[in-house]
Amino acid sequence: MDFVGSHILSVDQFARGDIDRLFAVADALEPFARRDRITRVLQGAILSNMFFEPSTRTRVSFGCAFNRLGGDVRETTEVKASALAKGESLHDTARVLSGYSDVIVMRHPQEGSVAEFASASRVPVINAGDGANEHPSQALLDLYTVRQEIRAQGRGMDGLRIAVVGDLKFGRAVHSLLKLLALFERISVNLVSPPGLEAPPDVVSVLADAGHDIGVHHDLGEGIHHVDILYVTRTQEERFASPEEADRYRGLFRVNEAIYTEHCEPNTVIMHPLPRDSRAQAQELDEDLNANPNLAIFRQTDNGVVVRMALFAMVLDVVDQVQDHARPVTWYTAKRTPAARHL
Amino acid sequence: MDFVGSHILSVDQFARGDIDRLFAVADALEPFARRDRITRVLQGAILSNMFFEPSTRTRVSFGCAFNRLGGDVRETTEVKASALAKGESLHDTARVLSGYSDVIVMRHPQEGSVAEFASASRVPVINAGDGANEHPSQALLDLYTVRQEIRAQGRGMDGLRIAVVGDLKFGRAVHSLLKLLALFERISVNLVSPPGLEAPPDVVSVLADAGHDIGVHHDLGEGIHHVDILYVTRTQEERFASPEEADRYRGLFRVNEAIYTEHCEPNTVIMHPLPRDSRAQAQELDEDLNANPNLAIFRQTDNGVVVRMALFAMVLDVVDQVQDHARPVTWYTAKRTPAARHL
Amino acid sequence: MDFVGSHILSVDQFARGDIDRLFAVADALEPFARRDRITRVLQGAILSNMFFEPSTRTRVSFGCAFNRLGGDVRETTEVKASALAKGESLHDTARVLSGYSDVIVMRHPQEGSVAEFASASRVPVINAGDGANEHPSQALLDLYTVRQEIRAQGRGMDGLRIAVVGDLKFGRAVHSLLKLLALFERISVNLVSPPGLEAPPDVVSVLADAGHDIGVHHDLGEGIHHVDILYVTRTQEERFASPEEADRYRGLFRVNEAIYTEHCEPNTVIMHPLPRDSRAQAQELDEDLNANPNLAIFRQTDNGVVVRMALFAMVLDVVDQVQDHARPVTWYTAKRTPAARHL
Repeated sequence: MDFVGSHILSVDQFARGDIDRLFAVADALEPFARRDRITRVLQGAILSNMFFEPSTRTRVSFGCAFNRLGGDVRETTEVKASALAKGESLHDTARVLSGYSDVIVMRHPQEGSVAEFASASRVPVINAGDGANEHPSQALLDLYTVRQEIRAQGRGMDGLRIAVVGDLKFGRAVHSLLKLLALFERISVNLVSPPGLEAPPDVVSVLADAGHDIGVHHDLGEGIHHVDILYVTRTQEERFASPEEADRYRGLFRVNEAIYTEHCEPNTVIMHPLPRDSRAQAQELDEDLNANPNLAIFRQTDNGVVVRMALFAMVLDVVDQVQDHARPVTWYTAKRTPAARHL
Repeated sequence: MDFVGSHILSVDQFARGDIDRLFAVADALEPFARRDRITRVLQGAILSNMFFEPSTRTRVSFGCAFNRLGGDVRETTEVKASALAKGESLHDTARVLSGYSDVIVMRHPQEGSVAEFASASRVPVINAGDGANEHPSQALLDLYTVRQEIRAQGRGMDGLRIAVVGDLKFGRAVHSLLKLLALFERISVNLVSPPGLEAPPDVVSVLADAGHDIGVHHDLGEGIHHVDILYVTRTQEERFASPEEADRYRGLFRVNEAIYTEHCEPNTVIMHPLPRDSRAQAQELDEDLNANPNLAIFRQTDNGVVVRMALFAMVLDVVDQVQDHARPVTWYTAKRTPAARHL
Repeated sequence: MDFVGSHILSVDQFARGDIDRLFAVADALEPFARRDRITRVLQGAILSNMFFEPSTRTRVSFGCAFNRLGGDVRETTEVKASALAKGESLHDTARVLSGYSDVIVMRHPQEGSVAEFASASRVPVINAGDGANEHPSQALLDLYTVRQEIRAQGRGMDGLRIAVVGDLKFGRAVHSLLKLLALFERISVNLVSPPGLEAPPDVVSVLADAGHDIGVHHDLGEGIHHVDILYVTRTQEERFASPEEADRYRGLFRVNEAIYTEHCEPNTVIMHPLPRDSRAQAQELDEDLNANPNLAIFRQTDNGVVVRMALFAMVLDVVDQVQDHARPVTWYTAKRTPAARHL
């Protein structure tokens, strides 16, 4: 695909070569994400950060990514603040808002809404989540994290062994990650869920059609043996018919230090799309794992910034200019060098 | 009037010469609004964008206009987030907030509130809507759009023929536009509304006192004959005593491609202050007009940015410095050159 | 204390020397706060302005302070927009958000929450209010105002006579101010409140232990005699068991021009943490004082910006670089020179 001027709506847009190019840009932007250097390459550009559904971390991550490239951010955080409430069509909203800014990031509760919006927009639109449908930057940052963690162990993506654990039926993040992993070679995937929350057939067939190795497990310990990555997911309680139904599954596949030590390999990397539910009955990842250096969940959210910077840089065609606007950071920054990777 | 340091509260402030000067500045700022060039003339300046009533488009339009001049924007979007809720007077709020920023844009549901606020402010205040009272930047962008569209046809404002259609009783936007049009010469105005929603006498007398030609119509087809501009307005349902009363008028004066073709001249420009209600029973401007090159509604909202840039530049006295801080845009921009004017 | 990289959580962190250094920085930043000059020393830095409880003035004041140093601001204004609502721990929220920005300002309704958040944050955190507990920047701006007002009268802080009036039981602002005043020499404090709303023993003992002179008064006129500073505080109605209980105290210790003239010295400075309740039955400071040049309440909020700029500059270690990034303001600014101090 040609990133320049494109909408980023779905993981289905990406071929492996696109991923490789995007991640190469992310690598080059790491010093800017980590506060060794700043760049002002997008000074004067405006991001319209439209969140018609609440989300602190995704919204702030996109906003900070754009600020780190030197651009300004205008935000909308409430559907009730919108003309949509007065019967305006998404088409009209898109035509209007796309006259204000250079790029739009949009989250909306309704599936397909962001693509519909993008079709009328005169500037590139990045989907930050349309209901249960797509959230491509989350999948990309998950994949980038897999790559970074595996690379820190001296290996590449091909031949990766991964277990995805928990609510595989409704977990949008895990579906998208699996689709992206299918672009690589010889992936071995353990699908580990309670009965009733298995991954949907279309996701499984993407992996199967590409010839990857798939195991289906209903037993946690068995499913997380011999993997490089343990990806735990949240019970998407808002997708269930009732809270009671979600309660039936809550905390069933809870991973803690004892389970990790018993079943995982010493270097198995632990990931989670966050937020993790830390209420006593619900923990998917117990807090006793916080000291475990393989817990990559905060490196994972950190990676969200650099992956989003890379998306903006490619879509707005400034990759080659970043270094021209760079200079050292001259204020206090906490040390987040490689030594701190396992903070 | 002297724009420098002034509050912009009402269309009544403007004489024709003021309009001419403002629009000349807007013309000069077009390359910056259209993303051919950026300027940083207001780098370091702060806009306090205070919306005590929801409005996505007006808020974002003002914010983006200020960003395009290089300034920063701080926003407030909720009345409940305000000290007003703790019994603070508008006087105190104004004294406090005007110590934070260089200029304030304010929307407030209560008529007269923005003028009261401005009287205590130590920095210029721009009224972005105070209830049913005033919203001068909307009127200015409407007038600028009339001028631009007519000019694209090789003509000037004097002698303009315009039909204003719909809820002329409660439509703040149309009242203000008519007052501004009264500043020009030999304007011919068709006031087209259902019985009961006629324009109020004070608006009509402003036009009559200036010697303009006024026609009152209750028939849509008849009213939109032989005009340069067809300005359709939204039913201001929030101003009616009950939703049922608003329903009586909804969709009565609906304009679509067939009606346009039958009654209008080939180059009649279609305007609307937006949002237009696109629900089936309510459409004021049917979506089958979307392909009609005379539909100027999105050029109209685009013009909001440049008119607001011009207001900021004049009030903050940086008109003469804009070019000193200018440089080409170096990121991807969709083509919004004259060829795209009829997108 | 060493400001660089530190969290600012409580007034208890500060020794007198710290206050002196902070205020010297604030003095140096005055030209930037007053719009004589701008600086871009923090260009590229990002503040995450997290308000999990509404507050317009504190939020905008922090945001504008950061903008005036050249930095960008990302904001969150609603607890419901937060992952906290999905059961995420403050620890996780802090780990995530501290990967996005260079410094965090946080307000949260729960006592101790900001310190808990800070303990997991990888960047400095400034407490902007955690329930009834601490709001150190308010105390610092109050103290800075005392110093500026007294200095304008040619005197220093040691030997200061101050009356604090009103709800001394729940007034967080006044507790913190008294703790900071205790760091100076020979302070004379009149504690003036209705019976039942006296200052708590721990606050009184901080003053007593440092050897300051304390008077307890239940009579307003008597309590405000012979003081340099009259600090009136708001009835913290949200801290009372019921609105009825708060109503019992409302308006009891109302100060107006007649009371001021009868009981105060001609130069007694009037302060209030704002917002003041201007509803008829509630006024703590009557509006007939607005023309009194000793009413310092708006100079006080203005000082909030410069004190917060000083905090950011010290915590992020850019004090010595501010002048390198400075240049004159070139847009219209209202005159806020010393002559305007008594506006």
